[in-house]
Amino acid sequence: MSEKTKIIRPAPVSGFPEWLPAMRRAEQQWQDTARRVFERYGFCSIETPSVEALEVIAAKGVVDKEIYVLNRLQADEDDKNEARLALHFDQTVPLARYVAQHFNDLVFPFKRYQMQRVWRGDRPQDGRFREFYQYDVDVIAVDNLPLHFDAEMPLIIYDLLRELGIEGVRLHISNRKILQGFMAGIGIADAAPVVRILDKLDKVSAKGVGELLAQGGLVNAAQIEKCLGLAAIQESDSAELQNKIAILNVKNDMLNEGIQELSFVLDYLKGLPSSAVIADCSIARGLDYYTGTVYEGRFIDDPGFGSVVAGGRYDDLASSYIHKKLPGVGISLGATRLFSKLLKDGKLSVLAPSPTQVLVILPSEELRAEAQGVAQKLRARGMNAEVYHAPQKYDRQLAYANKKQIPYVWFPDNGTVKNMATGEQMDADAQNWMQPA
Amino acid sequence: MSEKTKIIRPAPVSGFPEWLPAMRRAEQQWQDTARRVFERYGFCSIETPSVEALEVIAAKGVVDKEIYVLNRLQADEDDKNEARLALHFDQTVPLARYVAQHFNDLVFPFKRYQMQRVWRGDRPQDGRFREFYQYDVDVIAVDNLPLHFDAEMPLIIYDLLRELGIEGVRLHISNRKILQGFMAGIGIADAAPVVRILDKLDKVSAKGVGELLAQGGLVNAAQIEKCLGLAAIQESDSAELQNKIAILNVKNDMLNEGIQELSFVLDYLKGLPSSAVIADCSIARGLDYYTGTVYEGRFIDDPGFGSVVAGGRYDDLASSYIHKKLPGVGISLGATRLFSKLLKDGKLSVLAPSPTQVLVILPSEELRAEAQGVAQKLRARGMNAEVYHAPQKYDRQLAYANKKQIPYVWFPDNGTVKNMATGEQMDADAQNWMQPA
Repeated sequence: MSEKTKIIRPAPVSGFPEWLPAMRRAEQQWQDTARRVFERYGFCSIETPSVEALEVIAAKGVVDKEIYVLNRLQADEDDKNEARLALHFDQTVPLARYVAQHFNDLVFPFKRYQMQRVWRGDRPQDGRFREFYQYDVDVIAVDNLPLHFDAEMPLIIYDLLRELGIEGVRLHISNRKILQGFMAGIGIADAAPVVRILDKLDKVSAKGVGELLAQGGLVNAAQIEKCLGLAAIQESDSAELQNKIAILNVKNDMLNEGIQELSFVLDYLKGLPSSAVIADCSIARGLDYYTGTVYEGRFIDDPGFGSVVAGGRYDDLASSYIHKKLPGVGISLGATRLFSKLLKDGKLSVLAPSPTQVLVILPSEELRAEAQGVAQKLRARGMNAEVYHAPQKYDRQLAYANKKQIPYVWFPDNGTVKNMATGEQMDADAQNWMQPA
Repeated sequence: MSEKTKIIRPAPVSGFPEWLPAMRRAEQQWQDTARRVFERYGFCSIETPSVEALEVIAAKGVVDKEIYVLNRLQADEDDKNEARLALHFDQTVPLARYVAQHFNDLVFPFKRYQMQRVWRGDRPQDGRFREFYQYDVDVIAVDNLPLHFDAEMPLIIYDLLRELGIEGVRLHISNRKILQGFMAGIGIADAAPVVRILDKLDKVSAKGVGELLAQGGLVNAAQIEKCLGLAAIQESDSAELQNKIAILNVKNDMLNEGIQELSFVLDYLKGLPSSAVIADCSIARGLDYYTGTVYEGRFIDDPGFGSVVAGGRYDDLASSYIHKKLPGVGISLGATRLFSKLLKDGKLSVLAPSPTQVLVILPSEELRAEAQGVAQKLRARGMNAEVYHAPQKYDRQLAYANKKQIPYVWFPDNGTVKNMATGEQMDADAQNWMQPA
């Protein structure tokens, strides 16, 4: 090592998380679990490039996300003639583009899951992640998408959260037609700004939201009362839901349609505990592209954390890219954000920092071939094995096994195996020395 | 769908591959296989952010790769005070930075694998991938790294290629000390430019390389003859290797050290077929950071494709980031490039485009709850199941199963299951209707 080398002491880059091996193994478990759950419902994996042409990302004209564009460090004249490329900020735009581009090669309804990194160029001082995994699951149909899929998404998410061991998340479900039809029914022509304010109900009190609405001057006192009455409705039972909305005495066809759709979804989910799913008429999820069912999952005892999962139905996913009507419904888990929170809260099960199941001791250089032979035999049986790298004192070799939390140590000199948890040492020829995992 | 919407017809972006679902499933199989093989040898997974600070990537002063830097589309004054970020172009620089940054939290020798996308801003007209997966496996030690690890890498790669079902790749192994010591021994002071020309031997004939060397004026005719003599040596047996080099009658300590190290590796790999591994004194792999063993795997009958796997030993991986001597050895599979070639050559096993194992027929809207119940029962047994989305004619439902290559179809109206490959239909209560996968 040259003493003259200038040292660039590496520091974490804000917003770009990375994990030590034990935590990375927990993250792998999450990915395996999510994949297993999604595939159990018949969804296939796709991955799209990390980049899209900027014009694809900006197809709807709105670029309000903090988008990262790419430039070659050593750019030249050629670069000017090329499409500008940007890192995707979600997996929905790439899905829409993918479905439009490969339309003739896909079977519809197209059921896919996607678990990739996405990027958002937030300011570092905001403390948000700028690179993170999302687990997305969506189904896209041509022309018509049966409502049952709207009910299947909560089932999938319920299974996913349960199998990830995440407790205390409740999925709030509504239908955009309820808010929109209700507004129209009470004479509010432009629902968008009102909905935007109502959407703050999980952060601001009803009184505060009422004041914000009054300040805006968009709605009168009677309308505010109606809106807050609707937004306060949370209900697990579809008949009760219908009663509670009926009391507000607002007549509108779209409202009725929304109530029927939401009731259908609620009825379908009767098998789930009421702590897991609830109809919540305040849920709007912005106005961007959702047109029917909307979902938002939050921690019951930590609503301030915001949404753990979110999604909904969009009637026309890919209209920017293809002349087809492609309705879809989907839901997304903010995996890295949730993983990081649970890690911080000490709620992730701690794994060993290594996948090794058996460490083969190296008693001496002469016995290396034998030790290596033992490891190869274990590997052939599908076990993860490594040979200690140098013929050091057994204390040091065992300390290495302890540090890496390797459960079994094999001594090739006397043919025994030690269970590091129990201390028990037994004949390696015994069939049952390794407990089934 | 508004007719006024402007359509941005999406086109593939050159160099950024994406796969249809069936191919993506094959790619997932590759990733699963690689992970299984790496973990079987006790290597743990890490992932690093897609970006590094530009100063980290450029720590050695040389930035000869086509690097993509990130800029926020809506940049503001804050951005100027921030570190410039660039997408990583390999997984070795990130590994070095990771090891330096987390030095006190890792157990050494640190054995890790890493399977992420990397980015190279090549010009699109060059037809190279600009985003691709690499599967890297490396071991890093403090101060000393036993030579056995140099021999373990070919074992891992042999297992990996075999389990991926890839035939006809031979790993060429040499040791940088052989070329460098040999050059010194015949009086060539500056080996670098000569090695760079010799490295072309897999593309240019020996005669052509000799002419290039002569043109450079760096070496005389006798030296050229010696160099070509050395570079022509390919040998599986260590004693034969030593004989062939001895005949060239060059005396140099570094050369001897290289021969001994290479012989050790060859002896260690005696169990592998000679079609899989060969010592090849022409292998140099550039002069960037390899200091001992070097590897390069090529198709025996398609050497023009270039290296399938490549790697080697570096004595001082992280000297730019930490005042420690951290020798390492590793090897990397260019996964996307190889996958894409085999796909083009029709050599990948074709998978179904869906993970679904059982399609549950929907006979009528009235039987939906029953069909859904069947699917949930199958899922609880760990099977991948979906219910057909609409009560259409059976022909259409079966056509869907065929298109998605779903192996079993369940009829909830009469409780039978149909094996789509054999046409056999049997009682769904029979225990053995599904063949073990």
